[in-house]
Amino acid sequence: MGTKPWGGRFDRETAPEVERFTASVSFDRRLFEHDIRGSVAHVRMLARCGIIPRADARRLRAGLERVRREIAAGRFRPGPEHEDIHMAVEARLREIVGPAADRLHAARSRNDQVALDLRLYVRGEIAAIRALIRRLQRRLLAAARRARGVVIPGFTHLQHGQPVLAAHHLLAYVEMLDRDADRFRGCGERADVLPLGAGALAGTSLPIDRAYVARLLGFRAVAPNSIDAVSDRDFVIEFLAAAALAGVHLSRMAEEIVLWASREFSLIRVDLSYCTGSSLMPQKANPDPAELVRGKCGRLCGALVAALTMMKGLPLAYNRDMQEDKEPLFDAADTLRACLSIMAGLWDHVAFRADRAAAALRGDGSQATDLAEHLVGRGVPFREAHRAVGRLVARAARAGKALEDLTLAELRAASPRFGPDALRLLDHGETVRRKRSRGGTSPAEVSRAVRSWSRRLGARDA
Amino acid sequence: MGTKPWGGRFDRETAPEVERFTASVSFDRRLFEHDIRGSVAHVRMLARCGIIPRADARRLRAGLERVRREIAAGRFRPGPEHEDIHMAVEARLREIVGPAADRLHAARSRNDQVALDLRLYVRGEIAAIRALIRRLQRRLLAAARRARGVVIPGFTHLQHGQPVLAAHHLLAYVEMLDRDADRFRGCGERADVLPLGAGALAGTSLPIDRAYVARLLGFRAVAPNSIDAVSDRDFVIEFLAAAALAGVHLSRMAEEIVLWASREFSLIRVDLSYCTGSSLMPQKANPDPAELVRGKCGRLCGALVAALTMMKGLPLAYNRDMQEDKEPLFDAADTLRACLSIMAGLWDHVAFRADRAAAALRGDGSQATDLAEHLVGRGVPFREAHRAVGRLVARAARAGKALEDLTLAELRAASPRFGPDALRLLDHGETVRRKRSRGGTSPAEVSRAVRSWSRRLGARDA
Amino acid sequence: MGTKPWGGRFDRETAPEVERFTASVSFDRRLFEHDIRGSVAHVRMLARCGIIPRADARRLRAGLERVRREIAAGRFRPGPEHEDIHMAVEARLREIVGPAADRLHAARSRNDQVALDLRLYVRGEIAAIRALIRRLQRRLLAAARRARGVVIPGFTHLQHGQPVLAAHHLLAYVEMLDRDADRFRGCGERADVLPLGAGALAGTSLPIDRAYVARLLGFRAVAPNSIDAVSDRDFVIEFLAAAALAGVHLSRMAEEIVLWASREFSLIRVDLSYCTGSSLMPQKANPDPAELVRGKCGRLCGALVAALTMMKGLPLAYNRDMQEDKEPLFDAADTLRACLSIMAGLWDHVAFRADRAAAALRGDGSQATDLAEHLVGRGVPFREAHRAVGRLVARAARAGKALEDLTLAELRAASPRFGPDALRLLDHGETVRRKRSRGGTSPAEVSRAVRSWSRRLGARDA
Amino acid sequence: MGTKPWGGRFDRETAPEVERFTASVSFDRRLFEHDIRGSVAHVRMLARCGIIPRADARRLRAGLERVRREIAAGRFRPGPEHEDIHMAVEARLREIVGPAADRLHAARSRNDQVALDLRLYVRGEIAAIRALIRRLQRRLLAAARRARGVVIPGFTHLQHGQPVLAAHHLLAYVEMLDRDADRFRGCGERADVLPLGAGALAGTSLPIDRAYVARLLGFRAVAPNSIDAVSDRDFVIEFLAAAALAGVHLSRMAEEIVLWASREFSLIRVDLSYCTGSSLMPQKANPDPAELVRGKCGRLCGALVAALTMMKGLPLAYNRDMQEDKEPLFDAADTLRACLSIMAGLWDHVAFRADRAAAALRGDGSQATDLAEHLVGRGVPFREAHRAVGRLVARAARAGKALEDLTLAELRAASPRFGPDALRLLDHGETVRRKRSRGGTSPAEVSRAVRSWSRRLGARDA
Repeated sequence: MGTKPWGGRFDRETAPEVERFTASVSFDRRLFEHDIRGSVAHVRMLARCGIIPRADARRLRAGLERVRREIAAGRFRPGPEHEDIHMAVEARLREIVGPAADRLHAARSRNDQVALDLRLYVRGEIAAIRALIRRLQRRLLAAARRARGVVIPGFTHLQHGQPVLAAHHLLAYVEMLDRDADRFRGCGERADVLPLGAGALAGTSLPIDRAYVARLLGFRAVAPNSIDAVSDRDFVIEFLAAAALAGVHLSRMAEEIVLWASREFSLIRVDLSYCTGSSLMPQKANPDPAELVRGKCGRLCGALVAALTMMKGLPLAYNRDMQEDKEPLFDAADTLRACLSIMAGLWDHVAFRADRAAAALRGDGSQATDLAEHLVGRGVPFREAHRAVGRLVARAARAGKALEDLTLAELRAASPRFGPDALRLLDHGETVRRKRSRGGTSPAEVSRAVRSWSRRLGARDA
Repeated sequence: MGTKPWGGRFDRETAPEVERFTASVSFDRRLFEHDIRGSVAHVRMLARCGIIPRADARRLRAGLERVRREIAAGRFRPGPEHEDIHMAVEARLREIVGPAADRLHAARSRNDQVALDLRLYVRGEIAAIRALIRRLQRRLLAAARRARGVVIPGFTHLQHGQPVLAAHHLLAYVEMLDRDADRFRGCGERADVLPLGAGALAGTSLPIDRAYVARLLGFRAVAPNSIDAVSDRDFVIEFLAAAALAGVHLSRMAEEIVLWASREFSLIRVDLSYCTGSSLMPQKANPDPAELVRGKCGRLCGALVAALTMMKGLPLAYNRDMQEDKEPLFDAADTLRACLSIMAGLWDHVAFRADRAAAALRGDGSQATDLAEHLVGRGVPFREAHRAVGRLVARAARAGKALEDLTLAELRAASPRFGPDALRLLDHGETVRRKRSRGGTSPAEVSRAVRSWSRRLGARDA
Repeated sequence: MGTKPWGGRFDRETAPEVERFTASVSFDRRLFEHDIRGSVAHVRMLARCGIIPRADARRLRAGLERVRREIAAGRFRPGPEHEDIHMAVEARLREIVGPAADRLHAARSRNDQVALDLRLYVRGEIAAIRALIRRLQRRLLAAARRARGVVIPGFTHLQHGQPVLAAHHLLAYVEMLDRDADRFRGCGERADVLPLGAGALAGTSLPIDRAYVARLLGFRAVAPNSIDAVSDRDFVIEFLAAAALAGVHLSRMAEEIVLWASREFSLIRVDLSYCTGSSLMPQKANPDPAELVRGKCGRLCGALVAALTMMKGLPLAYNRDMQEDKEPLFDAADTLRACLSIMAGLWDHVAFRADRAAAALRGDGSQATDLAEHLVGRGVPFREAHRAVGRLVARAARAGKALEDLTLAELRAASPRFGPDALRLLDHGETVRRKRSRGGTSPAEVSRAVRSWSRRLGARDA
Repeated sequence: MGTKPWGGRFDRETAPEVERFTASVSFDRRLFEHDIRGSVAHVRMLARCGIIPRADARRLRAGLERVRREIAAGRFRPGPEHEDIHMAVEARLREIVGPAADRLHAARSRNDQVALDLRLYVRGEIAAIRALIRRLQRRLLAAARRARGVVIPGFTHLQHGQPVLAAHHLLAYVEMLDRDADRFRGCGERADVLPLGAGALAGTSLPIDRAYVARLLGFRAVAPNSIDAVSDRDFVIEFLAAAALAGVHLSRMAEEIVLWASREFSLIRVDLSYCTGSSLMPQKANPDPAELVRGKCGRLCGALVAALTMMKGLPLAYNRDMQEDKEPLFDAADTLRACLSIMAGLWDHVAFRADRAAAALRGDGSQATDLAEHLVGRGVPFREAHRAVGRLVARAARAGKALEDLTLAELRAASPRFGPDALRLLDHGETVRRKRSRGGTSPAEVSRAVRSWSRRLGARDA
């Protein structure tokens, strides 16, 4: 018996519960374009190398193209009767082209085939994600431009540290995202090798030409070791690690949107079209998209752990465990795309509230560092300056006075070294302007960064 | 504007991309039975407490029952136009019963509603999983009975340690699974409190009767703090932790099946109906179901991490992040069920190969511990006995002899304290019979364990 | 050669780098009390069962007790020259009692010995952690009593939902912690079986009495399967899962302390003795302990993942991988203890700022739900009431008016069904008082909960 | 009061339990060299920019150098009385150089200082790990050379797939490790920017020269955004992700060593100097180092999860949670170094057993794919060839014959298309020789790969 394509040696049918349990077609069907593209390249190579007749190759290519169209159009639906997308495509191909279909799988195993499909998928996702990262960076840059001049509290420990430009804060996210894009690039480069031709694990005795297939499919190189080629899922795990870290970044950004949109912070206003309400409480308008983005960081981390755990301790070469690589990968790619996309839209619907930011700064004491640096500029050792200003802050607090209400005499009571220009530092805006160190929050530095990013990112989404 | 049920204060529509991003109906629709069951109980309580008219309550209950049937039959399909299953049910209810539907949500928020639905779901899954664990334990017990008398190598460090009964080894898994069942029981008990009536977070000013709802829905108690009731997802995380640990157990079992089914170990034969073949290598018959079970341990761990990460650092009470609790929960429950189920079937299709096991033991030196214990029985301090037998083993190895081929003289050359009955210990079966310590691998102990488990598990699946 | 206690069959020394790599004594030395306690019980049993002479047993017990004292006093320091704490203790014992020490390890393997030590450790940690949880609950209860009467905004989505009593919020944490304590209890019960007597994996041929050892060490039962007894680390993983979930709870609590202590929220004041300052910014006072607790949630989750990953796919019985169970376990126990402890102290140094809370509520619209429920009480279907109040909120917002400033006429313009007593609902305190549903935030309910917890927790720390 | 360097505004001492809980000096003291190196560069810059007097700068540099020597020599031991290594160094510096020490911290915060120290640490660890990876690759290459000519079963699903050269299998690991090295390189490049000069988060008003410091410390660039510079821990997480994936690779390698060293596989012999014995079972020799490496994969994954979880949802800029970045980082770096190192030694102590490998291949049917490819070479469509060989395998199995014992007539009974040279394919060695496809297992291809790697890796360890 054995009605399976691999059933020659089997004297009995696979148990139906085993078929159900091991079938992957419900999720790997989304690889169909990649699978067929790989098969077409494989067929071209087989014919070119004289492994299959040219006439059969033509039939196979036309047939594969038809299967692709049928699946794309929903006319052929790979279903539970097929083990996986590879078998589904081949089965339908056989219905279309007849026995020539039996030639397709020469010099190929599902082991190298699925590795190929998955690399093509990852390559495509990396390109899409990098484009979405660029888009989000552009939206952040646009938001930074709109926020020009807005000074907000800069936080450490969620306490006011020093005033910063809102634009400077947004550019911090542009930097983070840039590392994400670069990580995905690195992942893509390491993934950019052709596994096809590795066969089950040993290579093949047929006279194939892997370099030709690599050229057809646009890979920079051929995987140099056949055992590694079918055992390796680094590109999946590295992708998931990059996605998890991007997810952490987005969770931080989301946390800040939630915080800043709170009644207490009121640093931003989120347009109501980007909020949702409560089924019970009529007054509510919640920043749900940001919260969901923050929450989705969890599933990105979970997907990474799933893949790491799955691969742990697996002997070479292919093991069926590795079928479990796909769902976390697909879910992570979809999730990250959706989060990047909604975040881009969200920043277009966020407005800083300069008035509330100004009110928040009043009396917060966040000019203190500048006072200390002023003293340093006048020769006071920093620790001494820090102590003097610390006493000043404590005294002002006891007196119920804001720093900005202090007089020069009061400053000098804390340290006689305060110069007359020290009073200017009690203006939050002035402290911002003075942070002219490279990468600092002064308008000059921030404008430079905005211009630099504008050049790098271009005006329009790709 | 604001066409949403919560849209009263909104002056603009939710952005379509936000609707898509935040919608949960594609996955929470599987909660529909629980949702409607909860609503029916809620309606009964509202009427009983005089909060809504009895006639409306009757209409609502009939309408809800109809919605339930429609969804079950696929006649009503909650879709992307609904935010979530709760809104979908209510929307369809309104079409059926008219304005009375507007009374349903009194004294209720989606926050306590979804907490209820999810607890009902978890309760059901725990019952199902515990039944599947019991079934797998029964199949292991049956396999242990079939393997009566088969002696296999007992491994530590994957090296032969001491011979054990195959049945004894299988019973180790029965023990593990029993802890799993007990953990799920504990999780179920802690989850068994009614959140409904907590409202959005504060309770309600309407004169509800939570204890009555708890009775209707079979909860042992009412959640005692309304803020906690809507903030808590412990029952999700604890379920996922129990599932991950069960997954680790199954991965160990699966690893052993893969190992034992290898050509090298050949301790078991897996029926071909539980194997699959290779698309390339005609001779292959692979234990794929076991490999997949091993691999699926990864996604169970991943789901746990997803939920832990998602909840980390969330302030009380409900946050939208918590919508992300469902997919890992559903996936883990489905995955664990499938793994338990296939493993039960698999053990029915596994046969120990007593001949190969006997061959594997021959010359493996795994009687050495018994020789040492024999010496201890004759007054030799254990370390001294261990050294003597160690030398004996080394000497036999150098001479290319198996322990079972040694003579009494050879034993006595290593230690003069060996008694004449020491030779009997060179038979692996005899060493097994002598492990009469409580919980040891002697046939008497193992039979006692089999009988004890037979009583506890009963003959038939529930 | 082979100078190791197990070196009889070895013809060469272990490579020094292997000794260093595999040694565990640097971390398992903290198990020394448990190890010696287990050995003493083992010795008593060996003597009672006639396996070793009574005189040797006396010597061994005295010697073990001396080793214990020496290690406790730092006079004997197990070091890198010993593989692990078990070998270190035995080596020192041999120096003290001479050849009798060679009898100690009869009928025992390090496999069951280390399983025993670790269970004793986990048992102790669970007791300590449960006591610390109780202490933290008591501090929260004390804080709740101090906060009697303070009304704060109740948040969902970090937006004002409905006003709640601060005490009610704190009691939500008491509930959470109670589930933690219960989870640890369940873990402890499942861990409460004696592995000793399992030997390496098969039991022993010597006439031991495991039940006697269990009684001596206070275990409720004997592990019923010797293979499982040495393969099982469920108690480690379950402990880590309970710790990770407790860590998530503490991270949420910590997040709220950080939030509430922010200048923007100002709902609490954290005593300066529980803050730290900035090396640069003189005005800073940061809630570092809470931040660190929040951060330490990460390592608790990491420890769980470490243990799950380590155990994944391990065949039975003992494998050396399992040595890796200890460091995450120790670290998680220490971390959780420290976090519970500092949090208890922290709550003693937190004061709610009733004035700021009152100011925060003003104009927040969080009475809206009560207005809607008021209409429901007068027969208006809830959705209709929700819409009416939604319109009212929107109108008030446009008019720049707080809900509490509305007149009855304005209410009736939104819905003619508003009764004259509706105006009372515009007082936040009144809306709190009306949440009389079981578990709601009314003073009556909260007082009942405080009394109930006071009874359960008792007045003093154990 | 406030005896802390930041205590100016504090009116009370930090609680001792808070000091203990927040102190990091017990673990961050290992950063002392990096910390001092960074301070020296900072001092040079401060002097050059005229922020501190040159004479003080000289004193500070000399003093810092002395502190470095004192800590290195154990003469100064930063202890619990210091908060962290930064404060400890500064405190000791003050004892040495007096008030000039108060000038050190000008234009610097611990936020940018610790970010610098950690980047220097990561940079050093990456270099060390890359060197260890290269060393392990070289040992694998040497092992591959020693194994020249040894044919072993190639496994998929732990079943014999096709015979492969042992050297080919080892080279698969060389490939994997190469990706690891490349990932660490990428991580290092992204980490290679100077955070110092970011101050607490906003930059500084003092006229610093960050580019000069970058040059002094060998960074390729200056972190372009001060907020990002102190908020970013990507380099920690990316390092941990690379370490976790390398750990997965090592766990797979370790699994194979454990498997192959088992009595059942016997494909390798591990020298006894790399094994350890059993405290109970005198005959045991266990491959403990490999098992431990496999187990340590868990803690590498755990460290990654710890860091991801810790950073999730943190608002910018610095939060104290981030102090928790160090211990997982240190532990992962130490663990990975130790694993790479022991593995390099292990491969020097592993010998393939060509005789056992040959015996294992006999009768395993793993020539089947070559028979099918032979038919394809003669024009038979692959699926048809696969079926024919499948039947042949089944028939041989029923007849109890190995493929290598079949006659041409028997082959032709399965397919008349078998040519006379088919019989040669029944020799496993011949099937290996024919895998001449690029990256395949033929001796020619493998030799080419060995030569190529020899060139790339060089002969000696760096």
